[in-house]
Amino acid sequence: MANISVTFFSNCLNRNTSFKLFIPNDPRADMPPQENKYSKLPTRTLFLLHGYTGDADIWCDPIQCGEYNVAVIAPNGENGFWLDGLSTGHKYATLLGEELIDYVRKTFGLANSREDTCIMGLSMGGFGALHTALMFPDKFGKCAALSSALIHNEVAGMRKGSGNPVANYEYYRECFGEPSKLAESVNNPEYLVKRLKEKGGEFPEIYMACGTEDFLLNENRAFHAFLDKENVKHTYVESKGIHDMVFWSEYARKFIPEMFK
Amino acid sequence: MANISVTFFSNCLNRNTSFKLFIPNDPRADMPPQENKYSKLPTRTLFLLHGYTGDADIWCDPIQCGEYNVAVIAPNGENGFWLDGLSTGHKYATLLGEELIDYVRKTFGLANSREDTCIMGLSMGGFGALHTALMFPDKFGKCAALSSALIHNEVAGMRKGSGNPVANYEYYRECFGEPSKLAESVNNPEYLVKRLKEKGGEFPEIYMACGTEDFLLNENRAFHAFLDKENVKHTYVESKGIHDMVFWSEYARKFIPEMFK
Amino acid sequence: MANISVTFFSNCLNRNTSFKLFIPNDPRADMPPQENKYSKLPTRTLFLLHGYTGDADIWCDPIQCGEYNVAVIAPNGENGFWLDGLSTGHKYATLLGEELIDYVRKTFGLANSREDTCIMGLSMGGFGALHTALMFPDKFGKCAALSSALIHNEVAGMRKGSGNPVANYEYYRECFGEPSKLAESVNNPEYLVKRLKEKGGEFPEIYMACGTEDFLLNENRAFHAFLDKENVKHTYVESKGIHDMVFWSEYARKFIPEMFK
Amino acid sequence: MANISVTFFSNCLNRNTSFKLFIPNDPRADMPPQENKYSKLPTRTLFLLHGYTGDADIWCDPIQCGEYNVAVIAPNGENGFWLDGLSTGHKYATLLGEELIDYVRKTFGLANSREDTCIMGLSMGGFGALHTALMFPDKFGKCAALSSALIHNEVAGMRKGSGNPVANYEYYRECFGEPSKLAESVNNPEYLVKRLKEKGGEFPEIYMACGTEDFLLNENRAFHAFLDKENVKHTYVESKGIHDMVFWSEYARKFIPEMFK
Repeated sequence: MANISVTFFSNCLNRNTSFKLFIPNDPRADMPPQENKYSKLPTRTLFLLHGYTGDADIWCDPIQCGEYNVAVIAPNGENGFWLDGLSTGHKYATLLGEELIDYVRKTFGLANSREDTCIMGLSMGGFGALHTALMFPDKFGKCAALSSALIHNEVAGMRKGSGNPVANYEYYRECFGEPSKLAESVNNPEYLVKRLKEKGGEFPEIYMACGTEDFLLNENRAFHAFLDKENVKHTYVESKGIHDMVFWSEYARKFIPEMFK
Repeated sequence: MANISVTFFSNCLNRNTSFKLFIPNDPRADMPPQENKYSKLPTRTLFLLHGYTGDADIWCDPIQCGEYNVAVIAPNGENGFWLDGLSTGHKYATLLGEELIDYVRKTFGLANSREDTCIMGLSMGGFGALHTALMFPDKFGKCAALSSALIHNEVAGMRKGSGNPVANYEYYRECFGEPSKLAESVNNPEYLVKRLKEKGGEFPEIYMACGTEDFLLNENRAFHAFLDKENVKHTYVESKGIHDMVFWSEYARKFIPEMFK
Repeated sequence: MANISVTFFSNCLNRNTSFKLFIPNDPRADMPPQENKYSKLPTRTLFLLHGYTGDADIWCDPIQCGEYNVAVIAPNGENGFWLDGLSTGHKYATLLGEELIDYVRKTFGLANSREDTCIMGLSMGGFGALHTALMFPDKFGKCAALSSALIHNEVAGMRKGSGNPVANYEYYRECFGEPSKLAESVNNPEYLVKRLKEKGGEFPEIYMACGTEDFLLNENRAFHAFLDKENVKHTYVESKGIHDMVFWSEYARKFIPEMFK
Repeated sequence: MANISVTFFSNCLNRNTSFKLFIPNDPRADMPPQENKYSKLPTRTLFLLHGYTGDADIWCDPIQCGEYNVAVIAPNGENGFWLDGLSTGHKYATLLGEELIDYVRKTFGLANSREDTCIMGLSMGGFGALHTALMFPDKFGKCAALSSALIHNEVAGMRKGSGNPVANYEYYRECFGEPSKLAESVNNPEYLVKRLKEKGGEFPEIYMACGTEDFLLNENRAFHAFLDKENVKHTYVESKGIHDMVFWSEYARKFIPEMFK
């Protein structure tokens, strides 16, 4: 598995940004390459989004690339909630759904078809995976959202001077835009669901999981209920677990074969 | 010269950040170490701040570390103007003047005294060098500011919906705080000058340079005039040049021996 | 935990080399630092040696630095068997026992005392850990050798044109020196044991482990028997396992608390 | 210009190796891409070989990629003289001419045609550029050799126990093979020239330069004379200069437009 680090100038961020790329394309002469049902298919692509306070390096050995014949792309999104924020240079959603995907197509010949392009994330990255796939449904065929920080309704209720123990009001306003306008904003995944239904667009396959001891359990249940109400097909799973790497590893390994079957 | 890359968790940024460090401490057996007046002194430390759209990697071979016996620290400040912004996790000024300096003291035994600690930058980084040295004058004994983006007075006049061709209003508000309050803010280097005079604190040595064809020439002249008016001792130089690496290399090489003499 | 990558010019290798360094020195404001019996002691240092075909990057999250208050240094030794080879620039043993240890003392203030300096490795790195600790017993107080490639007696019997399925004769000759002289060579850990006994020097604490299904089991048993015969105190453990990361993780986590208790 | 770092498992080296890749494929929205005669042609590829004691990082800003629309690949060859040495895992020539070139074709779609694939190096890398292009003339259409360490005739005369101030006999034997057999070896560029003539193969375009104060001047003149004697077309230039980056930068900038015209 090759380990590639790419630094390029992003027009969305107005500066250099970097991402990690793992490609299963260097078989060792002393280890015969894995031959299975995946190795006969074209290489799929999986975008992997880190959480709040995290970065691309949290995924050391991402999900057995070789076994599933998948190229993994881990971008750095700082604490930008993977959204197009208010300030110039904070276009993290457009970075994912347009600039970066075009870049890996052009440079590596990857992620060329919707069906072979998936996006997965944890916590803030779980929010980002859902949001990005719903905002760019012609680019991403599948998304997996683990313990997702689906806090858009909480943020929509914030007012100047408020915030929460994680960050202040200005932080949420910068990431999500004016909270009072979030109900009808493309930064709101519920708004994106409705918009996609109205357009009659094709939804991505959606996989969600949350631990029953996770502090974000209610937010995940609420979004699950919302999708049910809107008749959007999706997989939702709960099992014992907290907001940690143990839970994410378990479900990463469960959802990957589902997505690539 | 050792080339060190450090990633650590910054509480100011609420995530991992990285900086480059160049230390002149690995003499090659096949090249006798340079012996000069600098090599007999303790290793000095120079913080090097990049400009808008730049990053720590712009300084490939920074300023002949070996010749001047200086350790160079190049942090990554994204496009944060090296200021404490409004949002949680945007404390770039405190990162420089407290968190990072403490970190290199603890980890590398560097930057222990004000006299041996300098800060230099270009464009946005020139602004940052002046601002940081004036905000933390007990930490930095010297600062050199090249073609500095001393745009605080322009920003102070911005109002919602405005901005300039470089970035929008929300960007400047995020970095500098409410423009209407910038006159009396610690994000304003003129305010810091007045505050330091009132406190009777010791000013850092200040070195400024700007090219006569630079689009920031007026801003540099204005700050130079302000320092004169406030009777703050400083070196100010203009010569033919634009806003580019040629000018910065020339003045980096002129100011370094001045600072470390 | 800071993640540091250092590139410096090694006189032993006659070129730049790099190592990874993990230091438990950046507590997060949002996570109180671990307080336990280790946190009250000075930071210990652990050198971690990779195996044949490996490199420093195999240790992603090395051994819970934070929990045991230990700085981990992972050098890159290519396929040099951590020995001083025949060619100019192949001094991997001296790199470890002199150049690198001096470097981390000077640059980071680490590994200053024998008691607080440990070395551990797997496979070729297990051989290297034993060899280095026995060659520089005043530098390393403890060594842990996992599934070690203790092939010195096999190599001693090789003759021109021979070799084994792993590598050719020239490779082993380059790493170990002339096989016919290996019995009395400092590249032979058995010779080092005898030499240290004759000098009356202090032995490092020695920890060895090997899986009962490992293809190197006989070599590990032979060295264990040799140490018994020479009355060198050591810990030797076997349990079910093969030559893989599962076994190494298990014993890394068992031996670390032993070494640092 | 994107800055890419690739680590992959090399079967030639029997371990991970890394290379740098610079691609001119990320135009900045705020800087219109350069439009010139090169930008209308397909992206060419230039392999850039470092010298003895060097590594891929010596080329910080390689040769104005953007201006000439060229992708630059800088591999790490340690001190292996870019040759297939005696030991298992020392196949640096095959790494360049087969494994790496296949890798960049497969992964990046680069270096697909002989005409668009060039190789350049300095000192040991100048030797490597000539040697590689002559050993794999169907892969490389052009080669530029700066201040080349064309020491094959000196090495051919070495005997056990000898060597030179740079390295010992064992080092040269490991890199070049048995010196007594070097006259008829594929590690000898003169032998490769004769072989290619006999086969009636097509020679690469050859560009050579050496400073008149360079300690390798005689070796460069000798190879120039050899090529003349063999009627191999080539460009050979001398001018005032020593064995340093000033000379290499000058001729890199002279030869690049020649090669890509």
